[in-house]
Amino acid sequence: MSEVTATDLYEVTMALSYLREGMQAPATFSLFVRDLPPGRGFLAAAGLEPALGYLSRFRVGASDVKGLAEALRRPVEDLEPLQGLSFDGQVRAVPEGRLVLAGEPLLEVTAPLPQAQLVETYLLSLLCHQTAVAPKAARCVLAAAGRPLVDFSLRRTHGAEAGMQAARLCGLVGFAGTSNVAAARRYGIPAAGTMAHSYVEPFASEEQAFRAFARTHPGPVTFLVDTFDTDRGVATAARVLKDLGLGPGCGIRLDSGDLGAPARRARTALDEAGLRDVEIIASGGLDEYGVDRLVRKGAPIDVSAVGTRVGTAADAPYLDAAYKLVEYDGRPVMKLSSAKETAPSPKQVFRGPGLRDVIGLAKEESPEGTEPLLRTVMRGGLRTEPPDTLAAPRARFEADIAALPEEARSIGHPVPPLPTVSTRLAALTAVVRHRIEAQMLEGDGQ
Amino acid sequence: MSEVTATDLYEVTMALSYLREGMQAPATFSLFVRDLPPGRGFLAAAGLEPALGYLSRFRVGASDVKGLAEALRRPVEDLEPLQGLSFDGQVRAVPEGRLVLAGEPLLEVTAPLPQAQLVETYLLSLLCHQTAVAPKAARCVLAAAGRPLVDFSLRRTHGAEAGMQAARLCGLVGFAGTSNVAAARRYGIPAAGTMAHSYVEPFASEEQAFRAFARTHPGPVTFLVDTFDTDRGVATAARVLKDLGLGPGCGIRLDSGDLGAPARRARTALDEAGLRDVEIIASGGLDEYGVDRLVRKGAPIDVSAVGTRVGTAADAPYLDAAYKLVEYDGRPVMKLSSAKETAPSPKQVFRGPGLRDVIGLAKEESPEGTEPLLRTVMRGGLRTEPPDTLAAPRARFEADIAALPEEARSIGHPVPPLPTVSTRLAALTAVVRHRIEAQMLEGDGQ
Repeated sequence: MSEVTATDLYEVTMALSYLREGMQAPATFSLFVRDLPPGRGFLAAAGLEPALGYLSRFRVGASDVKGLAEALRRPVEDLEPLQGLSFDGQVRAVPEGRLVLAGEPLLEVTAPLPQAQLVETYLLSLLCHQTAVAPKAARCVLAAAGRPLVDFSLRRTHGAEAGMQAARLCGLVGFAGTSNVAAARRYGIPAAGTMAHSYVEPFASEEQAFRAFARTHPGPVTFLVDTFDTDRGVATAARVLKDLGLGPGCGIRLDSGDLGAPARRARTALDEAGLRDVEIIASGGLDEYGVDRLVRKGAPIDVSAVGTRVGTAADAPYLDAAYKLVEYDGRPVMKLSSAKETAPSPKQVFRGPGLRDVIGLAKEESPEGTEPLLRTVMRGGLRTEPPDTLAAPRARFEADIAALPEEARSIGHPVPPLPTVSTRLAALTAVVRHRIEAQMLEGDGQ
Repeated sequence: MSEVTATDLYEVTMALSYLREGMQAPATFSLFVRDLPPGRGFLAAAGLEPALGYLSRFRVGASDVKGLAEALRRPVEDLEPLQGLSFDGQVRAVPEGRLVLAGEPLLEVTAPLPQAQLVETYLLSLLCHQTAVAPKAARCVLAAAGRPLVDFSLRRTHGAEAGMQAARLCGLVGFAGTSNVAAARRYGIPAAGTMAHSYVEPFASEEQAFRAFARTHPGPVTFLVDTFDTDRGVATAARVLKDLGLGPGCGIRLDSGDLGAPARRARTALDEAGLRDVEIIASGGLDEYGVDRLVRKGAPIDVSAVGTRVGTAADAPYLDAAYKLVEYDGRPVMKLSSAKETAPSPKQVFRGPGLRDVIGLAKEESPEGTEPLLRTVMRGGLRTEPPDTLAAPRARFEADIAALPEEARSIGHPVPPLPTVSTRLAALTAVVRHRIEAQMLEGDGQ
């Protein structure tokens, strides 16, 4: 798949028309999420790093032109004005890991109109998806209240590439590991894994399975204890661990049914066997709600593995995000249609303490005691800084999450902070709306 | 990303252990969905084609071994037994496009245990995701009741690869087109697209925008009419279309707010302008529920574009799918743990009229008047048939959906048919459960 043709057809028809009409003046598009989904007290900016990679690589090649012409059922010559077009614009964006709220631009692109238009679909696809998954993972971190989390999502994400991103985002918000080997390598996250029920079944007994596993993997091991009967499985695991003189670094995993009660019985059994250092790992349909319930009940679970519901952001698998033209050739523009009015002009988010944010114009001064969230991350199509590793966004996430008001941190009923709009932005919005309405009346008079 | 390392770490630790223990006898794993999510009266088998591609390509190379060793923090030599391992097993599967129900195997893999284990994660990732999206798209087809649908999902899917699959699945269930240029080319689906609000805004007026678009794109055009005021937009579009002598094949698109009332007003305005052939295309947050509501209200919408909610299968973005060992070395096996008991042995689904299905043993004869759903699609690691195009699965889907009982077709309250279990499978399940329980008691006596 060429990244250039992984786009909506209309980006191409529009870009061609802009070129034909000589409309290559700078345009600014603002990418933002209109409203937070229920069950979210915040979003966490994510996807910028791959987005900048995409913009850096973007170039319409000869084979792309051929593909676009085929899709449009037009002669190749008609599409040739696009050939060689690359992205040489400016990008201002909220760095990954920072918390963002409704209406706040995640990213603003300023580039000649055809370029800025052509990259819309792919940018949305990267940022919407990742900014939907990251807060789900972040809420697991809040629920776990300091206990380690591991990502097991790869088998249920929307394909393997989505699984790679989910693993990265879990790492970004502070997970201790991922089961995804390729992601562990690519992003420098510890790889984690135990065994499946299918491992135990072909052996003549659970005990033989555990012993065989320990033979292949000398050192700390984790045994899955609920293939047949959990309490017996725990007893067998304890016997094998003691026999082999194993303990610290080892674990047992529970993966079925209600996890709290079996964990408590397992903890007692392990402690009585003198295996106080052996950890209990829980998995199976967990997300922030399940983790929170177990933590509140005081279940003796040392590590929680979350997968399906986090990797698919199951309760809010998409965001109501938009990529809207806000300025063309120095003139602020906006859309008026019902319930989807947008605000004009390039913007900045001024963050005050406790995430009291003000959305203002990019050219405004930062109000005292606030910090601007959007930074210039690309200029003339080139990154202004080397690519981020995971450490930097993780540090930003930790700082912002520490400043998040209590009601936004709630797992059960989160209430997100509401950003306000600066006086200057509100005034400009009114002026532009008035101008457009006047133009429409004029149009009627023609 | 190497497809081989896009796997859960435990597949690797288990495969290594099987090899070390000499456990390379044939194993059969069964991939099935335990329960249908609420809001689904059926599933549609999807993802087999890419899954067979994956199995055909599967081969552990030297760089994979290096990567796996790094992830496991073990010397490369320890992982070398995996090097060169490829997939040379058998696959029996439900062909894409056929409807499937709870508990019915989508696919069964029979291969030497280490191979069959290593491919688990990636197979699940392909089949779970696609079999979640396909029925969502299929329900839109039911709701549209013969009216054409177009896929606009790419910008909100979980990355571009997921968008490619979503477009393909929409094509598979009979959508008329996709906005996704790369998918249109790869899968031979018509590419479709109009213009965005951002196209209209940089022009001095809506009318100038429409005229410019028609200049660039001679022939049928579709104008987006709700950038500022929908009724005025429709009037402007009608004026421009008439001026240019355009009509048949052209359209207007509505993309904001309640779509029914503006569509009715637009239809009246277009008809009064003598533009009876100009179609109305609706988009904006639609899925089967929205399409159904508009169809029931008799809204004069000719084409519906669905995106976000379909491409992410928003109300059921994952399936409760499992890949379970059911036979090893000729011996049926199963898992007993709470609420997740599995049935042993390779299986077949015998489909009777009206999707009255019986899940039985693979070696059973088809009961009279039924048809076996699983076919052998790979033998010795090689496909038994050339890759499917979209036409064949689409034909299968159309045949099955025509046979689906009315209550399963309901948009509001679908009730899926419940497959029954054959006497022989039920008997074998009881025998194997008993055998395992007896072994556990024996184990206790040791």
